[in-house]
Amino acid sequence: MGPGGNSAARVQAFREHFEADGAQAALITDVANMRYLTGFDHVFDPMIAGAVLISPVYQRFYTDTRYIEAAQAAAKDTSWEVRLQRESLYAGVCDDLTAEGVETIAMESSVPHARFVFISDRFSGRVVVSDQWVERLRAVKDAGELDACARAAALTDAAFDHVLGILRPGLREIDVSLALEVFMRTNGSEGLAFDPIVASGPNSSRPHAGVTMREIEVGDILTMDFGARVDGYCADMTRTVIVGAAATDEQRRIYEAVLAANLAGLAAVRTGVRARDVDAAARDLLAGMRLGEYFGHSLGHGVGLFIHEEPRVSSTSEDILRTGSVITIEPGVYLEGRLGVRIEDLVAVEEGGARILSRSPKDLIEIV
Amino acid sequence: MGPGGNSAARVQAFREHFEADGAQAALITDVANMRYLTGFDHVFDPMIAGAVLISPVYQRFYTDTRYIEAAQAAAKDTSWEVRLQRESLYAGVCDDLTAEGVETIAMESSVPHARFVFISDRFSGRVVVSDQWVERLRAVKDAGELDACARAAALTDAAFDHVLGILRPGLREIDVSLALEVFMRTNGSEGLAFDPIVASGPNSSRPHAGVTMREIEVGDILTMDFGARVDGYCADMTRTVIVGAAATDEQRRIYEAVLAANLAGLAAVRTGVRARDVDAAARDLLAGMRLGEYFGHSLGHGVGLFIHEEPRVSSTSEDILRTGSVITIEPGVYLEGRLGVRIEDLVAVEEGGARILSRSPKDLIEIV
Repeated sequence: MGPGGNSAARVQAFREHFEADGAQAALITDVANMRYLTGFDHVFDPMIAGAVLISPVYQRFYTDTRYIEAAQAAAKDTSWEVRLQRESLYAGVCDDLTAEGVETIAMESSVPHARFVFISDRFSGRVVVSDQWVERLRAVKDAGELDACARAAALTDAAFDHVLGILRPGLREIDVSLALEVFMRTNGSEGLAFDPIVASGPNSSRPHAGVTMREIEVGDILTMDFGARVDGYCADMTRTVIVGAAATDEQRRIYEAVLAANLAGLAAVRTGVRARDVDAAARDLLAGMRLGEYFGHSLGHGVGLFIHEEPRVSSTSEDILRTGSVITIEPGVYLEGRLGVRIEDLVAVEEGGARILSRSPKDLIEIV
Repeated sequence: MGPGGNSAARVQAFREHFEADGAQAALITDVANMRYLTGFDHVFDPMIAGAVLISPVYQRFYTDTRYIEAAQAAAKDTSWEVRLQRESLYAGVCDDLTAEGVETIAMESSVPHARFVFISDRFSGRVVVSDQWVERLRAVKDAGELDACARAAALTDAAFDHVLGILRPGLREIDVSLALEVFMRTNGSEGLAFDPIVASGPNSSRPHAGVTMREIEVGDILTMDFGARVDGYCADMTRTVIVGAAATDEQRRIYEAVLAANLAGLAAVRTGVRARDVDAAARDLLAGMRLGEYFGHSLGHGVGLFIHEEPRVSSTSEDILRTGSVITIEPGVYLEGRLGVRIEDLVAVEEGGARILSRSPKDLIEIV
């Protein structure tokens, strides 16, 4: 059974939320939320036209001709009813709701404003906006989901091990990025969790550098931030290595500081802790080394069907860590135009602490 | 000069729109719209945190520490002011607007509803929603943009030519998809326009099949739908071939019908024509062959910085084709569980007709 196997329990939990708010049905159109609720493991792509409609007594998936065959196959032997909508998908949903006499529906707050307005106009009843109910359910993973995250992390580790064997000066960032991608996808990654970041030399000082044609030079720092996606669930890991030479004193000093911050963050993770305190554990350590001003982003974020999801792991987060959340711990130090280091692990939150899903080595690797 | 070189003219055209609606400033947060208006060619990725704020007298780009270095480099020698926002990006924008005494701002209708609500609450003035002004400007490409689209289409053609040289029974769909991707990206594609579709044998009957591990068998139909992205601009092409054998009579009959529909659609394209009439030209031809019920999707769509943009090219579109629009013409016939054929070209709309940017051959290719 894939990670979507728990659909019935998710739908039931979700029903309690929107019913408590006085809505008689909920209309869900975010791709990850639809995948989570339906449990259809092989239907959704980012361009899908679809809508999930859930009432106390039914659960429906509306889609168009491009996806109908796959949806019907996925819905077999489930409680899901699949409806083909040849014309306007949302108009069809609204007309069904109106015909059924529904008075109030709930939608996600992430819905595009224009879609919210269209549906508010077309549907005869009232539309209320939910407070991220599905996203909150998604923030705590069940066993099947945790297993998928762990498998995605293992495939990400394997890709790092593979690429260590080919790294050398003269390779371009794009070559490294494609080597990571080809390895992960030919070994079972469903797309990628996100476009890899492969940033060499001075490019490493930009935390969200993309991938360029720059050739890696002797002595470059190389930051690789990437993740596989297995059965829909994302992994996310960053490793930073030195290519073609031993590390300079400065490179090693920054690396060791970031590694210490990574370990401090990991050590702070456990059920019941405030996410902002985990952020602070790493941030305070860097500040104590006078490197605080060079760590400009959040310590981490939740991960699941989408690469950035709840809980928030930042200095302003109001979230409390819960058993079953999967988060990243990814401190970095960036010296503008010179060098950057980031070390990131994917971890599952447990009562006793962080269960670290990323198993790749973190001692400074010098590829000579 | 890249395709972003025309930023000043775009901002000026955009100003006239929102000023006519009584807004004193416009706040733009969609990634493609921000890229279009700023003309920053190498700053944006799908996860960027950024905001564009345009008033009659200034044009600003707000971003966080991860992107600030790239944004400052891109803004050099332009009229753009780049502002670093360390805390909440949108709160910072709202506070600036409130401090400046702005009374009404315009936002895009594609804005997530929750962001619209946050900004409406935080900003002291009024928020109105625009009617896709930027998207409408984007629907007519300037010379730099058309050139980028043509280069993306040429790279897509080259990838098809490359993959024809390696196709054989026993390859998996994923191998073909990665061969296309590696070729395009190592030859200059900035990411991809979208995740390729490579659908073999019975999988070809699902128009939006993803990519599986299925091995291509002797005599399979193989549909490949893919596109490079050059300087931000997408290409989109589909070719369908037969692998390992000559086509069966049924395969050839369906192929020739779809090719005829593709050619009929292309022949109908020119400035001033209704997009729905172009759709009808292809659809009516298939209906005349009793294949109409197997063509369930729109004939095409606009393409640019995003893979699906204006104008709409469907049976219900209200759009009139304009000189400088770039659209796809992609009829398909899908026999459930058996086979599907789609043939798609990328074209620029001109006074005299369609300028076809996709140059790959369309005679039925049998790889034996």
